[in-house]
Parts: sequence; C-alpha cells; structure tokens
Amino acid sequence: MASCILVNGVSSGEVSALDRGLAYGDGLFESIRFVGGVAPLWSRHMQRLTESCERLRLPTANVAQLWDEALHVSRGLAQSVVRISLTRGVGERGYAPSMSPQPTRIVAAFAAPVVSRELYAKGMRVRLCDIRLAEQPLLAGMKHLNRLEQVLARAEWTDPSISEGVLCDIHGQVISATMANLFARIDGVLLTPSVDRCGVAGVGRAEVLAVCPQARVGKVTLDALLNADEVFLSSSGRGILPVHSLGERVFAIGAVTRQLQQHWHNLGFSMEQGG
Amino acid sequence: MASCILVNGVSSGEVSALDRGLAYGDGLFESIRFVGGVAPLWSRHMQRLTESCERLRLPTANVAQLWDEALHVSRGLAQSVVRISLTRGVGERGYAPSMSPQPTRIVAAFAAPVVSRELYAKGMRVRLCDIRLAEQPLLAGMKHLNRLEQVLARAEWTDPSISEGVLCDIHGQVISATMANLFARIDGVLLTPSVDRCGVAGVGRAEVLAVCPQARVGKVTLDALLNADEVFLSSSGRGILPVHSLGERVFAIGAVTRQLQQHWHNLGFSMEQGG
Repeated sequence: MASCILVNGVSSGEVSALDRGLAYGDGLFESIRFVGGVAPLWSRHMQRLTESCERLRLPTANVAQLWDEALHVSRGLAQSVVRISLTRGVGERGYAPSMSPQPTRIVAAFAAPVVSRELYAKGMRVRLCDIRLAEQPLLAGMKHLNRLEQVLARAEWTDPSISEGVLCDIHGQVISATMANLFARIDGVLLTPSVDRCGVAGVGRAEVLAVCPQARVGKVTLDALLNADEVFLSSSGRGILPVHSLGERVFAIGAVTRQLQQHWHNLGFSMEQGG
Repeated sequence: MASCILVNGVSSGEVSALDRGLAYGDGLFESIRFVGGVAPLWSRHMQRLTESCERLRLPTANVAQLWDEALHVSRGLAQSVVRISLTRGVGERGYAPSMSPQPTRIVAAFAAPVVSRELYAKGMRVRLCDIRLAEQPLLAGMKHLNRLEQVLARAEWTDPSISEGVLCDIHGQVISATMANLFARIDGVLLTPSVDRCGVAGVGRAEVLAVCPQARVGKVTLDALLNADEVFLSSSGRGILPVHSLGERVFAIGAVTRQLQQHWHNLGFSMEQGG
C-alpha cells in the first residue's frame, strides 16, 4: 500500500468519483524508482510523460512540481516506487474532452518491488500468454490508463514460480512482457520489438537503447525468440531481468545481460534484495 | 454533474486513489435511462453487466442492490441517467488481479441528455472518424472502463452541428458511432455490424434486434453504408436517432426508423425535449 498520497498537491487518499481517469481511463501514469532522494531515470520518465500528454491533448505536466511532490511522498523510504498519474480531471458525462480540462495529479509512494538476488543471478521463468495485443497506433507506446489487456494477460497464470508472460500481437509477433520490455540477442544482433502499433515504450527500454548503440528495434517472431542466444526483460522499476526459460526452452544468461545489470548498478540502483 | 452519488452504498463523491478502476480502467459501467422510477431497459443492462463481470472475472453483481441504489440516487429526477460503475476495487500495485477482490460500486444519477425534437424528427449530421478501432475479441462487446479510443474519436471534431462520428475497424468495416450503435437498411435488409472483435454491444442495439426479427448482424462496408436507404443510431440513453447525413451523403429518414422511435415511446420513454 502507498505510504503517502498527494492529490493535486494535497495529502489525500481519494479522488472524485466523476474523474475521467476512472470513468474512461482518460489519462497517463509513470512508475518511477527512487533510491533515497534520487531517481536515476527521472528525466526519461518525464520525457515520455510530456510526449504522451501532447498525444492525448492533456495540458503539459509541470515537471518541477512533480519532482517536488515525488520527493515529498517518498521521503523516509530507502527504496521506493513513486507512481504519478495524470488524468483529464472531473468532466461532464460523455466522451467529449473539455476544451480547458483541469487535470487531476496523483503522486503516491510505494515500497519498491522485491526481486530476489537469485532471480537476478539465475533468471526468471517466463510463459507465453494466450491474449494477443490489439493494434492501436494512436495509443501505442504510451503508459496510459487503459490497461485491461495487461490485467487479462497477468490473470492467465497463478503459478508463483512463473514471473512473467510474453505478449504477442495479432500477427504472432513478439511485443513485450506484461510489465516489462523484451530484448533478445538473435544471430548476434540485440533486438527489441517495435512498440509503434501496440505495447509500451518503456523507460528501461529507452535506457538500454541509449547505452547499447548496437541494439536495434525490429520484428521478433516467436520462432526467432525461441532460437535466441540470450533474452532479458527491461523494467525501470525492476532493472534488467534475465530470462531463464520460456516454457520448455532454457536460455543461457549472456554477456549483454550482465553488462546491463552492471550499468543499472552504476546508475545508482541496488536492485538485489533478499536471498 | 451528478445530483447524488453512492460509493459502496454510502453517499460520497470520492473513491480511493488506489482503486484499480482508476489505475488500469479495470472495471465496467452501465448508463441507464430512468423515467421517474422506471428504467424500461434495466434487465438488458443487467444482463450485459452480469455477462461482462464473468468475462472480466469480477464477482457477480448484486442486481437487487443495484436497483435499490439506482432508485435512491435518481429519486426526484423526472428524467435521469444512472451510471453504475463496478471496478475490481483497491489493489496492490501491479496488474495481477486479486484472487478475492473487494469491488467498488459507484451509482450516480445525472440529468438525462437533452436531444432536441428537431433532431429526432429530421435526423443528425454525422461524420466519418479518422481513428480505427483496434481488434481485441477478449474485450469486444463489453462496456468496460478502457475508453480512450472513444475519447480520441470524439475529440476529432468540435463543430456543434455534427452530432456523432462513425467508427470503422482497421479493415475499414463500419462498427458503430462513438456513443451509439449503428443500423443501416441496405438492399432491403436491416443490418448492424458485428461487435465480436471491437465496439460495444449496446443495450439499445439489443432491443432493436429483439423487436426487429428481420434485422441481421453482419459486415457493413463504408461503401454499403453510403448506399444505404436508411441509417439510424441506437442508444439506450438517447433512443433511436435518425441519421440525416454522413459527410456529403444525405439519407431519407425511413419507415423502420419511425417504427422504432414509436416502439421507444411505447416502452415508456419520452425522448423529445426542447425545440
């Protein structure tokens, strides 16, 4: 549960029942990892949020104000995730957005996710999800509040030994995991799927693409993924997560995965927790 | 604005900022037209809600409780719309749904939409939307809280003389309007598009299909629509809305439209308001 929540700058646990974020999922969010008072990927989160506000025609976010509020809610937490939600605010009934919306801003701190040292070392077991992501270029890439596909995907399994699910689009192309982006080294090339038609353009993915100039964005078929030499997931909140296996297929954990885990450590994240 | 709101049975204007309805659009809604204490299409709304709860693995709605609460919030309003929202409730961070969710139930009454007498008589001007609806069979048909496509579609125009927009899927097949379903009489056959892959299975549409045994569900291309003899929209809240024109194409208002308007009147709705 959240230790502290600010709604439009005021300490509160509630929002209007008429908020368009609730009525229609009309808004965006970011989940930002803080280590003490430092958020190493803050600027990438704010870049995505700013671009997405423009795409959804939401008023531009006040980044300085968000920073102050994020620091406030995460104060006292050594390791936290700050979720920032921006909605189109309270509106009249009907889909038509107001010409001058008064957005709702929710900033809440949570304890950081616990990922075991063993999982970072030995990799996670991953399954293939049945649901296929729908293609909507006008929404693709954004971290918007319409996330029922991810909820349905994550509801496909309850086995706690399986950490993630791989999502494909309607053409059977691999897109991502349910909560993370996916990278695979295939025939010596580090590839991550395009998120122009579905999926989320993750902040962790953007960091990997920035520090791995050899990485390419392109199509990844399921067959190609199963033949990859190395597979890992990227998550701004959980870092670089090696994939141990996808169904029956077991992968070796490769050098790129280890280099990027080291990069995440150098950024100031100390991801490993527990045994 | 809502005149009265019940949240989990308690008079309140607010919900938890951690509700999954707000975080992920993880829930459903119904907008139900009341005339005094009567809701002629109540049972159809409850049928859709019940089926959708099952599809989203939400606990079954307590229909008797919803009826009591809908009557309570609409008391004193001669003409109202009661919006019922059901969400998966407050949850931990992450997409995984709880095995035993405590749903949030929001019941709110609003003044009924005002549609002019002239519009019912002479029909509405309609445009073709640019956005194409994405195909997601696992969500299609439901009135869920992920409605960003409709928000973007409705944001495409501001001309108040245009009342609605026609939405096509990625193949260019006609699906619906932004807030209503669509029927067209083409070569003597009354057709409404399938909503198995995208779109909402409207309660007004279900009523039309029930009382017009000659109506068929099938594919409607844009060309076929432009060559239709008669086009109307169905909406449980606004009734049978004749289409005067789609872009430059002007339609005559046909006999089926008039018969169904009369049927709506006989159900107990008096839709015409104002001049």
